[in-house]
Amino acid sequence: MGPLNLPRKVTVLGSTGSVGVSTLELFEKARVEVEIAALVAGRNVNKLAEQALRWRPELAVIEDESKLPELREALKGSGVKAAAGQGAVLEAAAADAQWVMSAIVGFAGLAPTLAAAKAGAVVALANKESLICAGPSLLRTAKLAGGAVIPVDSEHSAIFQVFSPENHDQISRLILTASGGPFRAWSRDQMARATPEQALAHPNWNMGAKISIDSATMMNKGLEVIEAAYLFAMDPERVDVVIHPQSIVHSLVEYADGSTLAQLGPPDMKTPIACAFAWPDRLPWPAEKLNLAKCGPLTFEDPDLERFPALRLAKAALVAGGAAPTALNAADEVAVAAFLDRRIGFLDIASVVSETLECMDRGSSTRPEPGDVLEWARMTDATARRVAGEVVSALMAQA
Amino acid sequence: MGPLNLPRKVTVLGSTGSVGVSTLELFEKARVEVEIAALVAGRNVNKLAEQALRWRPELAVIEDESKLPELREALKGSGVKAAAGQGAVLEAAAADAQWVMSAIVGFAGLAPTLAAAKAGAVVALANKESLICAGPSLLRTAKLAGGAVIPVDSEHSAIFQVFSPENHDQISRLILTASGGPFRAWSRDQMARATPEQALAHPNWNMGAKISIDSATMMNKGLEVIEAAYLFAMDPERVDVVIHPQSIVHSLVEYADGSTLAQLGPPDMKTPIACAFAWPDRLPWPAEKLNLAKCGPLTFEDPDLERFPALRLAKAALVAGGAAPTALNAADEVAVAAFLDRRIGFLDIASVVSETLECMDRGSSTRPEPGDVLEWARMTDATARRVAGEVVSALMAQA
Repeated sequence: MGPLNLPRKVTVLGSTGSVGVSTLELFEKARVEVEIAALVAGRNVNKLAEQALRWRPELAVIEDESKLPELREALKGSGVKAAAGQGAVLEAAAADAQWVMSAIVGFAGLAPTLAAAKAGAVVALANKESLICAGPSLLRTAKLAGGAVIPVDSEHSAIFQVFSPENHDQISRLILTASGGPFRAWSRDQMARATPEQALAHPNWNMGAKISIDSATMMNKGLEVIEAAYLFAMDPERVDVVIHPQSIVHSLVEYADGSTLAQLGPPDMKTPIACAFAWPDRLPWPAEKLNLAKCGPLTFEDPDLERFPALRLAKAALVAGGAAPTALNAADEVAVAAFLDRRIGFLDIASVVSETLECMDRGSSTRPEPGDVLEWARMTDATARRVAGEVVSALMAQA
Repeated sequence: MGPLNLPRKVTVLGSTGSVGVSTLELFEKARVEVEIAALVAGRNVNKLAEQALRWRPELAVIEDESKLPELREALKGSGVKAAAGQGAVLEAAAADAQWVMSAIVGFAGLAPTLAAAKAGAVVALANKESLICAGPSLLRTAKLAGGAVIPVDSEHSAIFQVFSPENHDQISRLILTASGGPFRAWSRDQMARATPEQALAHPNWNMGAKISIDSATMMNKGLEVIEAAYLFAMDPERVDVVIHPQSIVHSLVEYADGSTLAQLGPPDMKTPIACAFAWPDRLPWPAEKLNLAKCGPLTFEDPDLERFPALRLAKAALVAGGAAPTALNAADEVAVAAFLDRRIGFLDIASVVSETLECMDRGSSTRPEPGDVLEWARMTDATARRVAGEVVSALMAQA
């Protein structure tokens, strides 16, 4: 008991995105005394400057170098050092901090996450690609450096909270919950005609376009299966998905003795962030608490792999291992963009991913290679994007 | 990881009751190599002899001394020592065992549980009265002797599994789930006319008469609130009850950061027993696993304290402290027996308990007293039974 043992010096990578903003909001609401080593943003220089003036980090980095003059101007006289470009992002990630929020979106988040892990920080992980494209390598790096990786997205945080590493061999299953997305109750025929507008309407969370479509195809859940398998060192067949439209139970862990443990809560990102920040302590802050009696019924159903083949594709990529998850993720991004541009139909998204993986497997492009994990991931990512583009073009030519 | 660190030598107090039978069944199903120091039963000499011949304990004890010759006869030549009487029960409880299942029903279970705790064993606790009548004393005794108390009934086991003692100050609430019993949806008028047959029909568990009536009044949940408050050292206002008719979520712990952790599972006593047996390991056995997709909706509602005043009475007894919980429990037993005999109505059960507590409070009979906790509990129990009997008679005279 006694006072909490919290990190004193932190860095927020992706501070102007939704997770970054929630992180700073949490610090504010919990009134923690935190010193910020660096705040890092992509393009939103106004927001970054505002955050830097409020939080006075040692360093504020904007990835887009063209915005550096603007940042410098805004921070003039504040004592906050301004910097820009990928080198500066990596430098900020590796800066002296005990805790690093890794919330840069997309492939761009991978290198800074690895840098933070290598520096021995506790990495609060919101960037999907770090696990998808370099999971085993990231975890090894963190372990060697004496740091740790604590997941921040709600499903993996839920598992993390009820997963006892000492009982690893006695854990029979991880069960990720999924809202089922906007097409949960649609027929395959209806899904074939789904428009981007329909696919963008997510029932429970307000998210960006890419992740909303991933939620509609359930590829987001497929990617989370891969992340969970890496993060908790579980065999692919021990990671399952159950549809839970109310998104109250965030995920579950099943033990060999018949017990299933779960984490539940209202859908607020700040709770898993608080968990990752204070772990193994619990950070008190004025969080909305779950009121089960006000929830309405909680329902669960098995996912339909015919209507949501993305789940099967992701599992297959996980089983294939090596660079297959990286290729899956890249192909999905290309396919989702093509769907949003109305170049392909909704069900074509999974087809594009599937064909891309098949093509690359034939060319052996998904085999693991020794050497630099980042370079390897970048190459796989680029190849998969090129192949997926070709698959999209072929599909369009057929139509 | 590696092999499990399980207790090698165990004692089962109450081996022929449902929890005792489930305990031995679990050992069988899990194929654990366990040496039994003692098996202890109340009156069921046939079942005890059968168990003793199967498990070959060092000692088999029948509490009912009149059955000793029968037990001796049955165990002749087996090498199992037979004994009888309360002294032998206490001797068996204190025998050399690392783990003791405390599953003697009722007040009779208190002394052997204290004896086992004093001997430094890990006590798997299924006997309610040990906590209700001597909670703080039992826990102190176990701690001093280097043992532990691990709860076995499903609600407290659920809390135990997701309760992090290191985060005690950061736990905002324990939430016990309750099926709501057979009268969950009945009006107060209907409840006033309820018969013993109607009250005995429990929706989810097959239990004895006393506990079934306690489930119908929700006194069982009130007693569990007291047990939880003692077991987890939580303030009374931090222990809540939520009705959950499906009995799938066995209870929950709410943390200060907004997370709520829960344990779920099919209703099988063997899972909490397995948990108490192997803790902090997890015992693999062919348990039925929870299939959420097959469960049907999980619902939750706030309990109605007007229709279920037992919950309020129990909380008040907990707040009053001292011997009040002992008096509550004794008065409830008398009232339930009177209801089962059709001497009082269903709603009178709570009235009898309430009036008994009031009378005893006026006479200061619930004040904590120094000295022998057992003697103190026995006196309070006897006084409460006498007073409750008088209250029942007065009620009958009015009617």
